[in-house]
Amino acid sequence: MRDVVLMLDSTSNKPRIVIVGGGFGGVATAKALGDIDAEIGIVDKRNYNVFQPLLYQVATAALNPSDIATPIRRIFRHQKNVNVALGEVERVALDEQQVYVEGEPVHYDYLVLAAGCNHAYFGHEEWEEFAPGLKTIEDGSEIRRRMLLAFEAAELETDPEACRSCLTFVVVGGGPTGCELAGALSEIAHKSIPEDFRHVDTTTARVILLEGGDRLLPSMPEKCSRDALKHLEELKVEVRLKTYASDVRKDGVQAGDEFIPTKNILWAAGVAASPLGKSLGVELDKAGRVVVEPDLSVPGHPNVFVIGDQAAAQSAKNGQPVPGVAQGAMQGGTYVGRLIRAELQAKEAGHQQPNRKAFSYFDKGNMATIGRSKAVADIFGIKIKGFIAWLAWAGIHILFLINFRNKVAVFMNWTWTYLFSDRGARLILGNNRIDVKRPPDMTRKAKPKG
Amino acid sequence: MRDVVLMLDSTSNKPRIVIVGGGFGGVATAKALGDIDAEIGIVDKRNYNVFQPLLYQVATAALNPSDIATPIRRIFRHQKNVNVALGEVERVALDEQQVYVEGEPVHYDYLVLAAGCNHAYFGHEEWEEFAPGLKTIEDGSEIRRRMLLAFEAAELETDPEACRSCLTFVVVGGGPTGCELAGALSEIAHKSIPEDFRHVDTTTARVILLEGGDRLLPSMPEKCSRDALKHLEELKVEVRLKTYASDVRKDGVQAGDEFIPTKNILWAAGVAASPLGKSLGVELDKAGRVVVEPDLSVPGHPNVFVIGDQAAAQSAKNGQPVPGVAQGAMQGGTYVGRLIRAELQAKEAGHQQPNRKAFSYFDKGNMATIGRSKAVADIFGIKIKGFIAWLAWAGIHILFLINFRNKVAVFMNWTWTYLFSDRGARLILGNNRIDVKRPPDMTRKAKPKG
Repeated sequence: MRDVVLMLDSTSNKPRIVIVGGGFGGVATAKALGDIDAEIGIVDKRNYNVFQPLLYQVATAALNPSDIATPIRRIFRHQKNVNVALGEVERVALDEQQVYVEGEPVHYDYLVLAAGCNHAYFGHEEWEEFAPGLKTIEDGSEIRRRMLLAFEAAELETDPEACRSCLTFVVVGGGPTGCELAGALSEIAHKSIPEDFRHVDTTTARVILLEGGDRLLPSMPEKCSRDALKHLEELKVEVRLKTYASDVRKDGVQAGDEFIPTKNILWAAGVAASPLGKSLGVELDKAGRVVVEPDLSVPGHPNVFVIGDQAAAQSAKNGQPVPGVAQGAMQGGTYVGRLIRAELQAKEAGHQQPNRKAFSYFDKGNMATIGRSKAVADIFGIKIKGFIAWLAWAGIHILFLINFRNKVAVFMNWTWTYLFSDRGARLILGNNRIDVKRPPDMTRKAKPKG
Repeated sequence: MRDVVLMLDSTSNKPRIVIVGGGFGGVATAKALGDIDAEIGIVDKRNYNVFQPLLYQVATAALNPSDIATPIRRIFRHQKNVNVALGEVERVALDEQQVYVEGEPVHYDYLVLAAGCNHAYFGHEEWEEFAPGLKTIEDGSEIRRRMLLAFEAAELETDPEACRSCLTFVVVGGGPTGCELAGALSEIAHKSIPEDFRHVDTTTARVILLEGGDRLLPSMPEKCSRDALKHLEELKVEVRLKTYASDVRKDGVQAGDEFIPTKNILWAAGVAASPLGKSLGVELDKAGRVVVEPDLSVPGHPNVFVIGDQAAAQSAKNGQPVPGVAQGAMQGGTYVGRLIRAELQAKEAGHQQPNRKAFSYFDKGNMATIGRSKAVADIFGIKIKGFIAWLAWAGIHILFLINFRNKVAVFMNWTWTYLFSDRGARLILGNNRIDVKRPPDMTRKAKPKG
């Protein structure tokens, strides 16, 4: 037995719990296992946990990557039964009761899959190059880089059409991420940076939000959709409902009947679950999620669980699907962690295994923020909007940030952004070549000084 | 005339001042020009100004990139005569009175070169791959990535020799950057992260500092060198004086007679001025710096100045060379900016051109920090060490950070690091593959729990 990959002790007789993924679900599972006498291994491709709901703020230069990310090792510093390993899980071999990490088999007694999802392009993976999605810190930095370079290019561009294309931003998808990105982009162009440019008037930038359905935020009540639309229009975002992106190219996007010339397309439209689920050989839904039992286990394998965005689960409470949001993953993780803990404790005490009670999802509400100081929220069924909703949104997000240092950093950055409309993290890192058409016979006058 | 690159107004008759580089020197020049009626263009490869003295703290995960960087546009938001352009200056054509930016000529009336320097490998450029230097934010992130991955690899490594190599850090060069990096690395291994790892004891890490001369910090008084050595030894850094790195390879470094097996080599040994100086066709010193007149101008070209790390200048005060530090660049920039301003104002008023007074460098002192709470400093000739010196160092650095937001962010991060020995920015971004030898027959027991 060589389980060096997870650094679990292969000479130990302790039960072994392997958790794949250090996001909301995986972290909640390990925390709920507490101090039980077991070998717990968390394996993730990254060395950090990301607070995904605020990732769009990294993409829009309001927050630093490390404000919303915490090293997984740091989270479990004091939970000594947890081992953290950096590595990629390639497949699960249910028959062997092993997962393959970086080519090596690792045995498990219990397995919890919490590998999440990634953005999907509905079979047009070639669109990704021109329309990056937003799932990782690297994605956030890449979107930030492209957005900031677009304004730099517009400042240098002498061809009016090319300049217009630099200043047009198209966000595909009207869910929370799409609304949040569109609102923040518009605010940057209109409030944060106009004074920093001498030749281009950034307030002429257009932000266009495309949504295929007939309303924004389809997962929220209709009132919230209407409020979000209103807030976005106040921020001068052009919202196009019932409009699909049918082609995405380097020079623009086909939105319904219209081709919009733009170099800035952001993808917030679709997700697909981690491909790891395929290796289970069980039923998947069309987004690639594993269809799980009421106790979140894989059919026929009661010691293997799937939680969070990777699972197609139903809540025992109302038979509704558990949504792919942070609280769904956290509640699933806590449920599975407690269940495993109870079973192991019963076994150790020589008691009968406890019955498994089906998983119930408790919906605490939903919210999305629009710009610097507005939001829409549905909290325990109460629908609020505007600044009050933004305060609620800000408070809840700070509360759930994983460590105190992140809470303080985020609070400070928001206060700053709110007071001064300024964004502190406006660095273009990595490739910063500007591809500008530069007709030799043109010169350009400064914009009128305001 | 097509000067679109810098977005200077080619139809204007205003005098045109082109500044190459948005570091300490370039920013100080533009600020000193004030509100004169001229077209001022700053061109830089990056869109941000970096506070270089704190770059090693990004490399050692204590600060975020954006804590020490400010967009150049942001700095000149309210100085409306300044145009900022993102682009690379390839060469200066003194005869044509033009610089070439991204292949296009840009005319100047006054030119200020402040393009700085980069790390140099004394003719062994092939060493760079294995021994990254520290000049840009990207360098800082890369060193941080390598350092954090080294500890992750050590945790997974089962071969004791390979593990030892992961936990050995060699810093080449005993100047301020080398001392600061070595102290911080040792502190990370001994204080910040031991509890985060289950299998490897990070306190067994070795940090070795190589210095070719007979003392550390050769630019500071001997007492400071002795104090720095003492502080570093307290932090368990192995300092080797009179020891050159004669070979740098993937698997280690030849240090004098000894080959040190290590995967972690950091380069803080040598710098060379920007290659832009070569295109001037005037005398350079052996580090590639332009030998300038007492007024910092290029011999024979009184309207072209070179300042900061790119210049080999002498102070009129004592005939000593102006050191390649932040205050040298800032004082040079302020001097040149005022000089140009006075000349343009005299010209506009129809007065005679004022005489140029030679540049005098005023040395306010030097300091280097060693670890979390110690430093050595030589301030106006007074030599201090320990915590008092660290407080002075911290205060002065916060004071000179370019904007208020950065000041607050850095102050908070330092307070946190000081109180908890914790480092917040421990994210491995980009490539995080671990290359671990994994002998199939080995297992590994956890380290004794403390």
